[in-house]
Amino acid sequence: MSKEFFKVLDLEQVFELLPAFGRVDTEWVQLESALGRVLAETVIAPEELPHFARSTVDGYAVRAASTFGASDSGPALLEVVGAVAMGESAAGEVGPGQAVRVATGGMLPVGADAVVMIEHADVVDAGAIEVFRTVAPGQNLIAAGEDFGRGQPVLAAGRPLRPQDAGVLAALGLPRVSVFRRPAVGIISTGDEIVPADATPGPAQVRDINSHTLAGLATRAGAVPAAFGIVRDDFPSLHAACRRALERCDMVLISGGSSVGTRDYTVEALTAFEGASILMHGIAVSPGKPTILAKVLGKPVWGLPGHAASAMVVFDRVVRPFLRHMAGIAAPAGDEIRLPARLSRNLASAQGRTDFVRVRLVRREGRWWAEPVLGKSGLLNTMIASDGLVEVPKNVEGLDEGAPVDVILFD
Amino acid sequence: MSKEFFKVLDLEQVFELLPAFGRVDTEWVQLESALGRVLAETVIAPEELPHFARSTVDGYAVRAASTFGASDSGPALLEVVGAVAMGESAAGEVGPGQAVRVATGGMLPVGADAVVMIEHADVVDAGAIEVFRTVAPGQNLIAAGEDFGRGQPVLAAGRPLRPQDAGVLAALGLPRVSVFRRPAVGIISTGDEIVPADATPGPAQVRDINSHTLAGLATRAGAVPAAFGIVRDDFPSLHAACRRALERCDMVLISGGSSVGTRDYTVEALTAFEGASILMHGIAVSPGKPTILAKVLGKPVWGLPGHAASAMVVFDRVVRPFLRHMAGIAAPAGDEIRLPARLSRNLASAQGRTDFVRVRLVRREGRWWAEPVLGKSGLLNTMIASDGLVEVPKNVEGLDEGAPVDVILFD
Repeated sequence: MSKEFFKVLDLEQVFELLPAFGRVDTEWVQLESALGRVLAETVIAPEELPHFARSTVDGYAVRAASTFGASDSGPALLEVVGAVAMGESAAGEVGPGQAVRVATGGMLPVGADAVVMIEHADVVDAGAIEVFRTVAPGQNLIAAGEDFGRGQPVLAAGRPLRPQDAGVLAALGLPRVSVFRRPAVGIISTGDEIVPADATPGPAQVRDINSHTLAGLATRAGAVPAAFGIVRDDFPSLHAACRRALERCDMVLISGGSSVGTRDYTVEALTAFEGASILMHGIAVSPGKPTILAKVLGKPVWGLPGHAASAMVVFDRVVRPFLRHMAGIAAPAGDEIRLPARLSRNLASAQGRTDFVRVRLVRREGRWWAEPVLGKSGLLNTMIASDGLVEVPKNVEGLDEGAPVDVILFD
Repeated sequence: MSKEFFKVLDLEQVFELLPAFGRVDTEWVQLESALGRVLAETVIAPEELPHFARSTVDGYAVRAASTFGASDSGPALLEVVGAVAMGESAAGEVGPGQAVRVATGGMLPVGADAVVMIEHADVVDAGAIEVFRTVAPGQNLIAAGEDFGRGQPVLAAGRPLRPQDAGVLAALGLPRVSVFRRPAVGIISTGDEIVPADATPGPAQVRDINSHTLAGLATRAGAVPAAFGIVRDDFPSLHAACRRALERCDMVLISGGSSVGTRDYTVEALTAFEGASILMHGIAVSPGKPTILAKVLGKPVWGLPGHAASAMVVFDRVVRPFLRHMAGIAAPAGDEIRLPARLSRNLASAQGRTDFVRVRLVRREGRWWAEPVLGKSGLLNTMIASDGLVEVPKNVEGLDEGAPVDVILFD
């Protein structure tokens, strides 16, 4: 059992440990199941898009030169020599002084280099129109390859796919994509006082909260949670549960055991694995001080605080970047977009640790105010009353009322 | 066939139509499947939480009065009369001058009204401690019912459940919740030039983009998308596809057919249903002008622009509020949190319509800049290059470089 106790790290030091853990492997998925999945390889356009010149308006395909000088008072008279049906190649060619009817998205006929909008032409008879505007070459059309050139990088590896990304992959004829597997996250609740949510607790017992909160947070982070139940605060139970979880999961979360004695059980149960090492034993973050990070059988195992609100904050700020890293996401830790706001009241903070204060957002005088949701650390109502977190950096003693802050929004 | 053509509405007028559509029905789900689901009923605490007074620290349960006046130079000597095991009721009572060992989360014994932190006490021998700090009554504990009182509203109907909400429901012993059913959204792509994503398009054909983008957007909005394929731009095909989709879905999206002729087919196919009415035929929004909204068999049917980028913007800004309304979400349309930023360049806009400009977010000099992603309306690359939208209200002619804007972030 390696004795590497009391490695208290600060937030920057924790994130230096990210490369200690590899990314999960990859798989191919259908586009229909690709939403939110992380691209394993940069997508290269296999062909040019569009593969033919298309009109962007309803109108007449022309040679632009045929319209030069056309105006309301001096329209250009053009001969209509045909029409392009949607989805079909344009037959024939457009010569000088000629026009072919084309709808939005239709293929431009040979010879045409611009499209006159239908609003800018009057029908004279079945075979002729008057055009009132000059169009420039290239106007009202998309040229072949104008959207994406063949071989052009389209979407970078490490990007979680958005709805519009799936649309572009469909356009490029890529109905399957290579993505990272979703990391499996095993969740273990510990504590002799914990009973399941559907049980009636005894006089001094409480129901399991963390399994539910952490499963939701893991899901939101793109992982697949797996519950390994509630185990008693003793070495053999915890060790056995860890083994089961490590066999099936890429990361394990153990919550509870934040009191000194049970924290030791967690360390003991983890270091009993061959080659295990405790990378962090305490973190200079509030809430979240008793957090443990170990590398066991090559995988990250976290000992999270038992307090539900603390466990939630630690997951959001500390665990999630590790999960995103393992899931193949390219963006660095802490790059999420934060909402600029003003602090509604003074906030004290101890130096030497990073504080994450739960806040409620309030709109006042056309701007966002971050209103600290204060309360004892064991209370649950602060979790549901808050919209996000304000970070007070470790070298800051506190923040004044009205100070500009950047709110980390909960998903 | 009711002829209510050319009802062009602006954004405010469209949202006045929200009450024309009812909410979907409700169902019970297990907490494990409740993430993101919308509460159908306000959750009332069925019992008080916690149901016993709990210590929030590792330490000694005492009568606060026993510590009054205690200090480093004059500690209070207390008799240790027992210890509380986690999950078990405290045996015995704490009298004046007495203390009982208790861990974080442990139950307070009868007689105790405060907890001395372990750091503020020295062990004299197995039966005595010296206390160096005064504690006040109620200090370092959570009283019974302090988190939630019995009968207290906890989570309001119409709220989408977050991970921490599931945790609180678990704590309250509510392993199942009543939620709104996820709306089913039928998606139909129209256009004679459209082929599936896995097909090789002919010379003038393109692959179906909108089915994929809209399915992803519907999923993100909490709905269940169902694809009804690609149908030809003619009345019988479109009418039959609509019928199939309406039989199974709560809302139908028809995309494509933005050119004048096909728009008429859509209206014709919809008004052929008994009692159908066209509520909107055109919207004063760019992109998105040719958008149609009909009420058919009591359900909303949308005719969306064929351009993928336009369809995406219309879904995000116009369709989604309807979907959220039907899904039971209490928050009003357009209440999403927008990111304050500055515009990186001048932006022209036509008066009389609301413009939604795609923007990329860039961090510069400690603030966010919204950089318009310009490009022809038919291009797809603007969709994947942008992070969100900037709204230019209908009575504004344009915005200047450096103007403060609120960016609507894509999910």
